Amino acid sequence: MITSWREVEAGITFPEGFATAGVRCGLKTSGEDFALVVSESEATVAGLFTTNKVQGACVRYSRRVVRGGAAQAVVINAGNANTCNGEQGDTDNRTMADWVSRHLHIPPDRVITASTGVIGHLLPMENVRKGVDLAVSKLDSGRDADIGAATAIMTTDTYAKYRAAEVDADGWVAPIRLGGMCKGAGMIAPNMATMLAFVTTDARIPAPLLQEALRRASEASFNRVTVDGDTSTNDMCILMASGMGNGEISRAGDAFEDFVQALTRLCTLLAKELARDGEGATKLVEVRVRGAVSAPAAHAIARTIAESPLVKTALFGNDPNWGRVLMAAGRAGVPFDPDQTSLFIGDIEVFKTGTGMNFDRDAAHDYLTNKEIVLTVDAGMGDFTDTMWTCDYSYDYIKINAEYHT
Amino acid sequence: MITSWREVEAGITFPEGFATAGVRCGLKTSGEDFALVVSESEATVAGLFTTNKVQGACVRYSRRVVRGGAAQAVVINAGNANTCNGEQGDTDNRTMADWVSRHLHIPPDRVITASTGVIGHLLPMENVRKGVDLAVSKLDSGRDADIGAATAIMTTDTYAKYRAAEVDADGWVAPIRLGGMCKGAGMIAPNMATMLAFVTTDARIPAPLLQEALRRASEASFNRVTVDGDTSTNDMCILMASGMGNGEISRAGDAFEDFVQALTRLCTLLAKELARDGEGATKLVEVRVRGAVSAPAAHAIARTIAESPLVKTALFGNDPNWGRVLMAAGRAGVPFDPDQTSLFIGDIEVFKTGTGMNFDRDAAHDYLTNKEIVLTVDAGMGDFTDTMWTCDYSYDYIKINAEYHT
Repeated sequence: MITSWREVEAGITFPEGFATAGVRCGLKTSGEDFALVVSESEATVAGLFTTNKVQGACVRYSRRVVRGGAAQAVVINAGNANTCNGEQGDTDNRTMADWVSRHLHIPPDRVITASTGVIGHLLPMENVRKGVDLAVSKLDSGRDADIGAATAIMTTDTYAKYRAAEVDADGWVAPIRLGGMCKGAGMIAPNMATMLAFVTTDARIPAPLLQEALRRASEASFNRVTVDGDTSTNDMCILMASGMGNGEISRAGDAFEDFVQALTRLCTLLAKELARDGEGATKLVEVRVRGAVSAPAAHAIARTIAESPLVKTALFGNDPNWGRVLMAAGRAGVPFDPDQTSLFIGDIEVFKTGTGMNFDRDAAHDYLTNKEIVLTVDAGMGDFTDTMWTCDYSYDYIKINAEYHT
Repeated sequence: MITSWREVEAGITFPEGFATAGVRCGLKTSGEDFALVVSESEATVAGLFTTNKVQGACVRYSRRVVRGGAAQAVVINAGNANTCNGEQGDTDNRTMADWVSRHLHIPPDRVITASTGVIGHLLPMENVRKGVDLAVSKLDSGRDADIGAATAIMTTDTYAKYRAAEVDADGWVAPIRLGGMCKGAGMIAPNMATMLAFVTTDARIPAPLLQEALRRASEASFNRVTVDGDTSTNDMCILMASGMGNGEISRAGDAFEDFVQALTRLCTLLAKELARDGEGATKLVEVRVRGAVSAPAAHAIARTIAESPLVKTALFGNDPNWGRVLMAAGRAGVPFDPDQTSLFIGDIEVFKTGTGMNFDRDAAHDYLTNKEIVLTVDAGMGDFTDTMWTCDYSYDYIKINAEYHT
């Protein structure tokens, strides 16, 4: 059981053994656009990658590094996805890894690469070279370095997203630190965004366990965020364990379960920031489903509601339009019966077993003006639950996505 | 083989034996909101209904009528979906059918009902009564009556949608007339819209064949239109055959195949109007997929592209952003390989077997400013094709859906 959870205003270098830097090398029209994360010694590594059939060069490369179970650096560029660039794209990606490898005297197959930005434009390697040189020279630990790196990986994000916590659990030999940063601009898009998440820990933990922990934590956090249902070509989530702290998870069991729980909590904090900062978002929306006949059914209902443009536009308009929520649940393709269903907007029951309630519409409207809102669907058929995070659809969503030109 | 296709500016009463009326009874705040379609004698009937688990009272009732294979009237109200109203909703729906039945001296189980509008409000039966009385007194045939009915079934539609054609085929004993009207406002929504389509023919054709023809024609037309992926609780497509013309289709075979083809053509004309008038739409978008490994794969790719908010916002911005189209195809969950894929915007090849082409961006931008555009994906893997129709996502989509209040 987790016995203490202390959050700190820090990020990826909060765990022992990590340094980072965020610099500008001119890949974006303004601001920092190049980041490096380095572990003092070889770290164990886990990674999850996009399921899109179209994949960036970095995804193909980093997947192989992760398969090796060890990494010592992550190099990330914004402003250019290096996707659909044919063999030249793979060569350029490899060159970026090689430069980092030579500077840091580590093997190139210990360097994770990540790219986010426009598709179909070759990486300007002069700028990348400058980015590597500059980032290596500025490597540092601490809050400023963490914010610098979290800022450098942004595309249409409106703020840097980073979280850190020191955690203890009753079966652990010592507290474990977790740190992380992510970017997405909510929209998981190939064009000016991509979901990237990088998480570190100072626990000593073997790669297979680390991969299992990341898989489970992501399933309950990053995979529960949707802005528009679009999956990027470059999505990536990387977890490195330095082993430089005193914590150690050596096998499956209670201590490992507590680690998964702590990691899930940190990843959930990061994931909710992705939805909160969704393109054009005015509010963070949590969709809770309970009473479904199975876990997949609960997830299908939550996801269909969270991705429904009609639900999301109604929420932007602060309209307690339960008909749209019900309609979305009804088309999820899983067992669902309105006559057994109840709907809640916040704590206000708006629909009960087949009929609309005579609820206080003004109160519901007022509740929907909050920055964080919760919709709950009780399907009344079983014991399974699910939660998704999303945001509303505003004029700015259209503006950001229609007015950006390739 | 179809030997002649003559379109006329008319609608649901163009085939022999039908009369219609569109009147105002006060269910909407303004305009006509109540329509009746009547066949001189009992017609054979076919119908398709929403797959949403949440269904309007009219869907439950009309499904039973269609099962009987015969109908003589269709009564349609706009402004109120009569959905999620419990037993009272079913009673009110039945009463609406009863009133039509008594006025026209036909059995109530020969009356199809259809409702579209707000969910969760009881039907104001005083108004419905007035609507039935008025519509019966105004029944008429001809273009004006057709437009009146097509107007009365509108919700957020910006114009009435109706089509008619006289068709001949080499194996037919006589030409066959087809007429139809539909509404949707593009968005297939429970709140202020619903996809409703009503088609008539004067051919004599038994109900099982009629149902098979409607199923096949809809699959290639109405089921190929998507505005936002949301499926309404009240969607319905009804086809009545009066048998009052000289045409006859008595069994499966070439003559029937030609009838299916003609019906598909008429339904496609109607379906494209749904996409063209999508809420906030500025253009009609045809997504063509070829070279897929199977028919379901072709459909999944076409549909994922047609429903991608990123693609739809880019099209609103007239941006030849092929990365978004490729990304959407890549997440369709079916075999797809960018290295074998080519993309076309109109006739302009923008992406070929894995890499972006050096195409004329200005020409592509200019092409995208047209009112009708075609995107083509050649997956290069097989022989299967699919086509979907959709529209772009504009500021007005958000405006219509966020500013409408329940």
